[in-house]
Amino acid sequence: MKTVLVTGARGFIGRHAIAPLVARGYEVHAVSSQTGTFDSAATWHACDLHDVAAGTSLVAAVQPTHLLHLAWFAEPGAFWNSGQNIRWVEATAGLVQAFAQHGGKRFVGAGTSAEYAWTGEVCDEETTKMQPATLYGGCKFAAWSILQAFARTQHFSAAWGRVFFLYGPGEKPGRLVSDVVSALAEGREVALSEGHQRRDFMHVADVGAAFAALLDSAVEGPVNIATGQAPSVRDVATKLAELAGRPDLLRFGARPERPGEPLEIRAAVRRLTEEVGFRPEFTLARGLHDALAQAAVRAP
Amino acid sequence: MKTVLVTGARGFIGRHAIAPLVARGYEVHAVSSQTGTFDSAATWHACDLHDVAAGTSLVAAVQPTHLLHLAWFAEPGAFWNSGQNIRWVEATAGLVQAFAQHGGKRFVGAGTSAEYAWTGEVCDEETTKMQPATLYGGCKFAAWSILQAFARTQHFSAAWGRVFFLYGPGEKPGRLVSDVVSALAEGREVALSEGHQRRDFMHVADVGAAFAALLDSAVEGPVNIATGQAPSVRDVATKLAELAGRPDLLRFGARPERPGEPLEIRAAVRRLTEEVGFRPEFTLARGLHDALAQAAVRAP
Repeated sequence: MKTVLVTGARGFIGRHAIAPLVARGYEVHAVSSQTGTFDSAATWHACDLHDVAAGTSLVAAVQPTHLLHLAWFAEPGAFWNSGQNIRWVEATAGLVQAFAQHGGKRFVGAGTSAEYAWTGEVCDEETTKMQPATLYGGCKFAAWSILQAFARTQHFSAAWGRVFFLYGPGEKPGRLVSDVVSALAEGREVALSEGHQRRDFMHVADVGAAFAALLDSAVEGPVNIATGQAPSVRDVATKLAELAGRPDLLRFGARPERPGEPLEIRAAVRRLTEEVGFRPEFTLARGLHDALAQAAVRAP
Repeated sequence: MKTVLVTGARGFIGRHAIAPLVARGYEVHAVSSQTGTFDSAATWHACDLHDVAAGTSLVAAVQPTHLLHLAWFAEPGAFWNSGQNIRWVEATAGLVQAFAQHGGKRFVGAGTSAEYAWTGEVCDEETTKMQPATLYGGCKFAAWSILQAFARTQHFSAAWGRVFFLYGPGEKPGRLVSDVVSALAEGREVALSEGHQRRDFMHVADVGAAFAALLDSAVEGPVNIATGQAPSVRDVATKLAELAGRPDLLRFGARPERPGEPLEIRAAVRRLTEEVGFRPEFTLARGLHDALAQAAVRAP
C-alpha cells in the first residue's frame, strides 16, 4: 500500500494534487492548518507544521511511505522576502527528520524557479547556477539542501519539483492571471506593465498532476515543473481579454516596469517530460479559457 | 570603528582568529556558550545562540559592523550526520536576521568543503557542482543559501569561507593530525588506512588569519579557505613520524578504507590568493613541526 501525506493540501497546488494521487493508487492523508474535510477523497489532518513535535506525531500516526510537501508561506507579494521563509525551512527540516525516523521511502517537496540565477538563460536543473535573489528562493534552496542531505544519509528517495509560474482555479488575488480575470469579469480596466517579460506559465491542474507523477516515479533530485514555453505577460493578458471579448480593458504601460526584472524565465523540461514521463493536459489557450470559465462560474 | 562579533570564538578556528582581527584594527567581541574571559584581546559574551532572542539581544547590545560566524556543532565523527546541524541552520538564520535588523555591514560565515560534490576534481567556487553527501555539508550549504539571500535583499555584504582540512594547536582528539601526534608523543603505535587519499590541509593559524583577511576584504560569495595543495594522508603521517623520530610506530593498512571515500579533495584557491590577497604562513613541513612542538609543550 502506498500512503502519502500531503502538506499544504488546501493550498493552490495541493487541492489539485489530491485527485491525481488517488488515481495513481495512493491512500491520501492531507494536512492543513485548518480543521475540516475539504475533499472526501482524502483523510484530513489539522496540524501546525511549525510545531515540530505535532508534525512528528502526525508522521508517526500516519506512517506515510510517501510525503508530498507543498506547505510554505505563500501570501502574494509578501512571500518573497518575509522572515516566514526561515520558519518554513525549520518546519521542512523537522518533517524530513520525522519522515526518515519513521521509515519513509520517498519525499518530494516543492521548490521554485527563484532558486536559479535569473540571467535570462533557460533554467536547467543540471547546469544553471543556483543564485536566489530573494529570501524565498534562498530558503527553498536551503530546504532542498537539507532534504537532499538527509535522503543521502538516511537512504530514502527524494526529489524537488521546482515550480515556475502558475495560474488557474483557486489562484489568490494579487497575481497576474487572477487579477486580469477578475477585472475582465467585472468590466474594470486592467493596469499592466508593457508586459514584454516572458514567463513559463503552467496551469495549476497540470502542476498538481506533475507533482503526483513525480512522486510516483523514481526520479531523484531537482525537476522543473513547467511547460518549457514562455509566453510574454502581454500575450497572456491579451489572450484572456480576447477570450472575454474585452481587449479594450487592457492598459499596457500603465504600471511601471519592476527594476531588475529578468526578460525571460523559462524552464528546461527534459527531466519532467523524458525522465518522469509527464505531459501537461492544458495548452496555454485552453488553460486561460479554463481560468476565465471558472471565474465566470464563481461570479455573482 | 570596525566592531566584529565572533561566534564560536573558543572553537578550534575561533581562538586563532582573534589576534589577526585585532591586528587589523577590529574591536573584537567574542561569543562563547561558556562564561569567562578566554583571551584578553577581546570582550567576551556568554550566549547560547540556539536561543534566537538571546542572540538578537547580544547583536543589539554590541551593534557589530562585522560578524564572523564560526559557531557550529563540531564533535569529531558525530558532526557529519547529527540533527544538531539543523539547529545550527536555525541559529545562523536568527543571527543573520538580527545582524540585518541592526544595520550590520558585512557577515562572513564558515562553510565547508563538504558542500561540494566530492568527485575528485579540484573544488572551484564557481564551477564545481554543489552536492553535499552529509547532513553537515547540506546544512552548511543551507545556511549559506539563507545568508546569501538575506544579504542580497537587505543590502549588506556577505562571504562564506569554505574550510577544507585543518590541523594544529587545539585540535580535538579523533582527527588525523591530533591522533597521530598524541600517539607519537606517548610512544604508541598508530593504526592508519593505506593513506592514499589526498586532502587539502591548512594549519589552523592560517585558517584563522584567512578568515580575518576575508572579513576585512570586500570579496563576496563563497571563498575556499585552503592551500591548494593536497598531500596524502600517508605523506602527513610519515612527515609527523619522521619529525618525531618514530617512523616505526606507523601501521598503514591497519585500519580499513572508508567505503566511498574520495581519493582527492583539493581546493581552487584563486579567490583567496588573488581576490582576498591572502598567503598562508605555514608550509606543511613547518605546520606539522608546529603541531608536534605544541603537543610536546602540553605533554606532562
